[in-house]
Amino acid sequence: MSDNPSFVLNGIDDVVYEQRPIPEIQGSEVLVTVKKTGICGSDVHYLVEGRIGDFVVEKPMVLGHESSGIIAKVGPNVKHLKVGDRVAMEPGATCRVCESCKAGRYNLCPDIVFAATPPYDGTLGRYYRLPADLAYPLPENVTLEDGAMMEPLAVGVHSVSNLGGLRASQTIAVFGCGPVGLLCMAVAKAIGASRIIAVDIVPQRLDFAKNYAATETYLPIKPNDGESKVDYSRRNAENMKKELVIEDRGKNSIDLVIDASGAEVSIATGFYIVKAGGTFVQVGMGNPNVTLNLGLLMTKELNYKGSFRYGPGDYPLAISLVANGKIDLRPLVTHRFKFENAITAFKATRAGKSEDGKGVIKAIISGPDSED
Amino acid sequence: MSDNPSFVLNGIDDVVYEQRPIPEIQGSEVLVTVKKTGICGSDVHYLVEGRIGDFVVEKPMVLGHESSGIIAKVGPNVKHLKVGDRVAMEPGATCRVCESCKAGRYNLCPDIVFAATPPYDGTLGRYYRLPADLAYPLPENVTLEDGAMMEPLAVGVHSVSNLGGLRASQTIAVFGCGPVGLLCMAVAKAIGASRIIAVDIVPQRLDFAKNYAATETYLPIKPNDGESKVDYSRRNAENMKKELVIEDRGKNSIDLVIDASGAEVSIATGFYIVKAGGTFVQVGMGNPNVTLNLGLLMTKELNYKGSFRYGPGDYPLAISLVANGKIDLRPLVTHRFKFENAITAFKATRAGKSEDGKGVIKAIISGPDSED
Amino acid sequence: MSDNPSFVLNGIDDVVYEQRPIPEIQGSEVLVTVKKTGICGSDVHYLVEGRIGDFVVEKPMVLGHESSGIIAKVGPNVKHLKVGDRVAMEPGATCRVCESCKAGRYNLCPDIVFAATPPYDGTLGRYYRLPADLAYPLPENVTLEDGAMMEPLAVGVHSVSNLGGLRASQTIAVFGCGPVGLLCMAVAKAIGASRIIAVDIVPQRLDFAKNYAATETYLPIKPNDGESKVDYSRRNAENMKKELVIEDRGKNSIDLVIDASGAEVSIATGFYIVKAGGTFVQVGMGNPNVTLNLGLLMTKELNYKGSFRYGPGDYPLAISLVANGKIDLRPLVTHRFKFENAITAFKATRAGKSEDGKGVIKAIISGPDSED
Amino acid sequence: MSDNPSFVLNGIDDVVYEQRPIPEIQGSEVLVTVKKTGICGSDVHYLVEGRIGDFVVEKPMVLGHESSGIIAKVGPNVKHLKVGDRVAMEPGATCRVCESCKAGRYNLCPDIVFAATPPYDGTLGRYYRLPADLAYPLPENVTLEDGAMMEPLAVGVHSVSNLGGLRASQTIAVFGCGPVGLLCMAVAKAIGASRIIAVDIVPQRLDFAKNYAATETYLPIKPNDGESKVDYSRRNAENMKKELVIEDRGKNSIDLVIDASGAEVSIATGFYIVKAGGTFVQVGMGNPNVTLNLGLLMTKELNYKGSFRYGPGDYPLAISLVANGKIDLRPLVTHRFKFENAITAFKATRAGKSEDGKGVIKAIISGPDSED
Ligand SMILES: NC(=O)c1ccc[n+]([C@@H]2O[C@H](COP(=O)([O-])OP(=O)(O)OC[C@H]3O[C@@H](n4cnc5c(N)ncnc54)[C@H](O)[C@@H]3O)[C@@H](O)[C@H]2O)c1
Ligand SMILES: NC(=O)c1ccc[n+]([C@@H]2O[C@H](COP(=O)([O-])OP(=O)(O)OC[C@H]3O[C@@H](n4cnc5c(N)ncnc54)[C@H](O)[C@@H]3O)[C@@H](O)[C@H]2O)c1
Ligand SMILES: NC(=O)c1ccc[n+]([C@@H]2O[C@H](COP(=O)([O-])OP(=O)(O)OC[C@H]3O[C@@H](n4cnc5c(N)ncnc54)[C@H](O)[C@@H]3O)[C@@H](O)[C@H]2O)c1
Ligand SMILES: NC(=O)c1ccc[n+]([C@@H]2O[C@H](COP(=O)([O-])OP(=O)(O)OC[C@H]3O[C@@H](n4cnc5c(N)ncnc54)[C@H](O)[C@@H]3O)[C@@H](O)[C@H]2O)c1
Ligand SMILES: [Zn+2]
Ligand SMILES: [Zn+2]
Ligand SMILES: [Zn+2]
Ligand SMILES: [Zn+2]
Repeated sequence: MSDNPSFVLNGIDDVVYEQRPIPEIQGSEVLVTVKKTGICGSDVHYLVEGRIGDFVVEKPMVLGHESSGIIAKVGPNVKHLKVGDRVAMEPGATCRVCESCKAGRYNLCPDIVFAATPPYDGTLGRYYRLPADLAYPLPENVTLEDGAMMEPLAVGVHSVSNLGGLRASQTIAVFGCGPVGLLCMAVAKAIGASRIIAVDIVPQRLDFAKNYAATETYLPIKPNDGESKVDYSRRNAENMKKELVIEDRGKNSIDLVIDASGAEVSIATGFYIVKAGGTFVQVGMGNPNVTLNLGLLMTKELNYKGSFRYGPGDYPLAISLVANGKIDLRPLVTHRFKFENAITAFKATRAGKSEDGKGVIKAIISGPDSED
Repeated sequence: MSDNPSFVLNGIDDVVYEQRPIPEIQGSEVLVTVKKTGICGSDVHYLVEGRIGDFVVEKPMVLGHESSGIIAKVGPNVKHLKVGDRVAMEPGATCRVCESCKAGRYNLCPDIVFAATPPYDGTLGRYYRLPADLAYPLPENVTLEDGAMMEPLAVGVHSVSNLGGLRASQTIAVFGCGPVGLLCMAVAKAIGASRIIAVDIVPQRLDFAKNYAATETYLPIKPNDGESKVDYSRRNAENMKKELVIEDRGKNSIDLVIDASGAEVSIATGFYIVKAGGTFVQVGMGNPNVTLNLGLLMTKELNYKGSFRYGPGDYPLAISLVANGKIDLRPLVTHRFKFENAITAFKATRAGKSEDGKGVIKAIISGPDSED
Repeated sequence: MSDNPSFVLNGIDDVVYEQRPIPEIQGSEVLVTVKKTGICGSDVHYLVEGRIGDFVVEKPMVLGHESSGIIAKVGPNVKHLKVGDRVAMEPGATCRVCESCKAGRYNLCPDIVFAATPPYDGTLGRYYRLPADLAYPLPENVTLEDGAMMEPLAVGVHSVSNLGGLRASQTIAVFGCGPVGLLCMAVAKAIGASRIIAVDIVPQRLDFAKNYAATETYLPIKPNDGESKVDYSRRNAENMKKELVIEDRGKNSIDLVIDASGAEVSIATGFYIVKAGGTFVQVGMGNPNVTLNLGLLMTKELNYKGSFRYGPGDYPLAISLVANGKIDLRPLVTHRFKFENAITAFKATRAGKSEDGKGVIKAIISGPDSED
Repeated sequence: MSDNPSFVLNGIDDVVYEQRPIPEIQGSEVLVTVKKTGICGSDVHYLVEGRIGDFVVEKPMVLGHESSGIIAKVGPNVKHLKVGDRVAMEPGATCRVCESCKAGRYNLCPDIVFAATPPYDGTLGRYYRLPADLAYPLPENVTLEDGAMMEPLAVGVHSVSNLGGLRASQTIAVFGCGPVGLLCMAVAKAIGASRIIAVDIVPQRLDFAKNYAATETYLPIKPNDGESKVDYSRRNAENMKKELVIEDRGKNSIDLVIDASGAEVSIATGFYIVKAGGTFVQVGMGNPNVTLNLGLLMTKELNYKGSFRYGPGDYPLAISLVANGKIDLRPLVTHRFKFENAITAFKATRAGKSEDGKGVIKAIISGPDSED
């Protein structure tokens, strides 16, 4: 008789609590009692649409992948962890033998088992099993809530530091001030960026960004009636360049642009904003087909890079930036829910605000056993 | 009284021969007697459209920028060249003091004086002046015609070797089998690529590519009536992957894709063809606004790079690959014209074939004084 | 009752044939019937000295690590291999979970199990067990002997292509014309280096190099009586630069120096030979403490890199270069021995020549069952 | 009749004040009224030894190269500067046409005209002429004294950020706590290094480092009588690893070692300290011939890089780190002298302390006209 209550997505808009077998662990695995889980846009997306791109929910699936917890059991080969340790969980177990895994790009592993990506179950249960090296011990000054936030923070680390290569005193513009965009800014601030421009169409999100990590904000102009996205983006970019004094070269130029909005017009605007010879990292996923200005790509010799999850070193760096006090994750956790209220948590995230009207940045759901 | 007959574009479809002053040279400059000049698509473009993107022909401009010649005069500070030396000319004089110039990316210099890019005159005259370091002595076994071809070859070197980072035994697909695409393949072959896939919609160009440098060719399928470019590209890519046995990973995968066609559907197809973690270099310029599949960019973490002309080391490498016998440029020169027949040369290049029906790859115009 | 005869080193100069248990294989492992094994300097070193640096032979150890064979058994999870497949064996099984393994530098794994490196047994038996992904299928046109040679070739690939970053038309000097140095030259040739300078103090080795892959050779001058290594190296370098026309910059400069001799004077000479801004890869291991000219390191901003075995992609590239005909390994195999004559094989390798006086480059020992 | 009093080195220990012609400026040059000049170890070295390596003082030479000043005159082509602007001066004018200059490594230019490096005059006069792009305007919150300090700071930027590639949360050990070592630590701190270990044999310098930018310090153990440098270094490294808890891998490992002492035993110790796969940047210059442990270089696959002055982007980054408040240069300026007391300034720097016993980190000499 198991006792592993789990929050299961059966189909579109159909979630239930269900008992699932407690996972058996092997040699180098650990079993973690899940304590904190953040809700991600993708969890909501599966709930609402039943799919993300080619990933389709075809059988019941436990949701959740941004989690921390406490070690409940360790496999016989595990040395660096013991029962009771507080850990952040990296939710993608890879094959370790393919070309990508061996070459240091394990996020491209075709056989990755990623929590709450169909057909694999997620972390919103009492227990989650994972390879021991993906359970990162949390330093004393890092909370379990911080631990759950390491997942989106690792996305920011991967995009800004790893792929974007941002360095101290450089400049960055981030389109989109959701949790991912904000964490990209937090990483940029930790790295010592001299200029961090936040862009969003929601003024409250810009305020939040300004208080959190941005040095400047930009509210895009409104499109004209019938204006094409291409025309709008150029006009928007020209306005942004003028308003914020952004140039193509030199000290008023933007070394790195991150899109964390997924909006076509953000991306198109970003191509104008980024400096000659600059880098543009695409993190946001929206409409997969987007119209881009290749003239800019070419004459500025841009480097336009897709960013997918996180890879070697990203979790450790995320944890260390928080432990060293360079990033404060607490302001982002705007809502907290008990395990039995997971549905309310999803509802709030989906709506962008809770019933009391408070805007959601990140909602965290506690594990079944948590007192808090 | 000067004697510098030049081939001048006055406006759309309006070219004349005109006397221009012989340029005065200074300290570190040289004066070159132009001997061979290739016609480039951009020359034709200015002739036909009067502009390329933001570059507009607003006053009469000498055409031509793919040239070689013989040193006629050297400035007092020039040491490595003497009158009579045969040289290839790199046709972009840069400021040497801006951030881009100093950082090793001089092709991004905002103050570049590029031959036959408005408002700067080109090389189709008797004389051309340039900084001495941009006049590269030709080794004995390299002809003046080869010397003129170094310009498009440098584009290939920059794209494939420098930005694309192709290495021995890797694989490449090149979309577009015009001179630029063919030269990209030639560079790939010189580097030792194990698989060089040529793509073009013109079967004769594929034949040419196969005989020249490609190991395989692909003729895109026909679009269906009313099929969107997005749908067509996916279908085309699936067909191409099946027909040529191309996979996303492992030894049947494509490390590098080059677009040298500028066609939207080529680029869209290329996004499907390139391997996970691969690189895509954009060389072709067509419609500046192109719809791309960002889902592929992201889940494969592609590196999509614009390529603009050439930079440090590209001309030297181009010359050395030819001098070492790794690239044979002669097959590409399909047509040769005297200076006084420049108009016929342009006509043939524009038509893609000469009056006798022979397909043009590259037409070369001799200088005013050439016997041949 | 097992039948796994093995060639075992008991201690200095003490080797015996012994039955060893046939290894049991697990999930993703394979058992390989060893067919061809090259003798490496390190095997001889263990035989003669009982140690290499901190690696000390403290209990009996099977020798051999440059091997190929035929799959005898596959674990239940193995998909890409079947019994009877011919494979090259990469002889280092790594932990796959440490920082180095995950970051794409698995050769730095502290827990690597490397064949014939104490305390781990080597491949000179009938059977060898290894993780399936380290058994690389050999293309049809690649022999089992070639397969055994992939190990030292991977060292060359790692040093020249991976760490050294050599590109087509660049220049290289290799100090030491033993198997490793020769294979570095073979890689350089396959990459398309325009100048491959071989250096050795043994004229016959220089001849061999010249016939095999070098474009030029250099025989170091003799040291004067009482001349310090520092003084000698400078004098030797000056002579070499003059004799071969080597300069610090420009087209007569050397982009990459490889030391595959381990000799202090080679390394010291190489520091003078390599170009400003160049790279020096250290492959040879001799006296661990070596006196170097830091003035050169600094004023030329050299990049001096240690090279240790091989990492991700090196075996696949080695195999592909041979399969594509870019490298011919056969000339290097100068001697072949039956399993029961392993001692003679070691004797010849140690002496540098067989009893008939023929110089040894690489001696290959067949497996116990081989007919040839 | 000129009025350009200058501080001239005639020969060993022989300095005089002398009138020198006021430099004529050309097209893109500026004339700067020198206001602040730091004394560097190399200035003292020329005074005491008359040479540094191959650079020999053969005719009288004005000393000084760490300077700032005020624009006195601008050439006709200069646009970004005007008379009266406060600037930091980068004291190396390069040829801009050689391979190194064009490839973005202008510090390797063979024709560099570097202030106070024979045969070129330095900045310790009333006026100094330099190309306008090497005169960097100082932001308002950056003093002229800071401006003079940009030169050694650029050395730190080049070593730590550019060549060393240090990133936020990484770890570094710096051997030598003179101005250069301290500035390397300042850069590491600005970049967000989590651990900055300062090493020096002078306890006061360690105290200074700890107060300034280091997170930990290490005082090397004493060598035993007759102990070789090799043996001592190993013992010292073992002690350091134990005392500070330094390991070869993982979070207690050191990503980057900088030697800014030039001492052989520092370098040798650093090879043990740096992590597997780590980087070691050599900044200090001492005895050019140094004995190193290649076994460590190889088995850890170290990257050992020489660092020479500074290159593209280093001055701008130095200025921006100071302007953004990430680096405070003021604590390093321990002594200030009037122009007419330059000899006293040199005396104090040479002695390491002024007559009142106060230790010198950096002594600054004002220009002839300065009131302060
Ligand atoms: N690459 C990856 O591995 C990865 C991982 C996680 C999330 N994501 C993606 O990152 C994106 C951001 O995630 P999130 O959780 O922060 O989402 P979110 O929805 O909370 O935030 C998106 C923000 O973009 C803003 N926005 C929308 N249109 C805009 C426009 N035209 N201009 C500027 N801002 C605009 C929205 O107002 C919102 O604040 C999503 O697309 C998500 O799918 C990618
Ligand atoms: N980036 C740069 O610095 C640079 C420099 C020179 C040229 N270019 C560009 O490179 C491109 C190629 O130049 P070129 O001189 O070889 O031109 P070209 O016109 O001779 O060649 C283009 C080729 O692409 C083929 N093509 C067209 N549509 C195609 C499709 N859908 N699929 C496959 N092939 C298709 C055409 O049949 C033709 O053979 C041009 O766009 C040119 O503007 C760029
Ligand atoms: N880094 C690694 O992972 C790795 C792997 C395998 C081998 N190795 C090392 O590579 C080196 C070469 O291996 P090998 O099997 O070819 O050895 P080898 O002994 O056959 O070859 C060394 C060659 O260097 C020559 N030589 C000696 N002194 C010289 C000098 N002063 N100048 C020029 N040449 C000189 C010798 O004559 C000989 O031909 C060895 O030191 C070996 O330990 C390193
Ligand atoms: N690479 C370059 O471009 C460049 C530029 C400027 C200076 N430098 C060099 O950098 C070095 C540092 O310059 P500086 O001005 O700070 O010199 P400095 O003499 O003031 O500082 C050197 C420090 O090293 C310490 N030291 C000496 N032996 C030591 C040991 N065994 N272990 C630890 N510390 C030891 C000294 O006590 C001193 O504090 C010098 O060698 C200088 O020549 C190089
Ligand atoms: Zn994998
Ligand atoms: Zn420029
Ligand atoms: Zn490992
Ligand atoms: Zn130069």
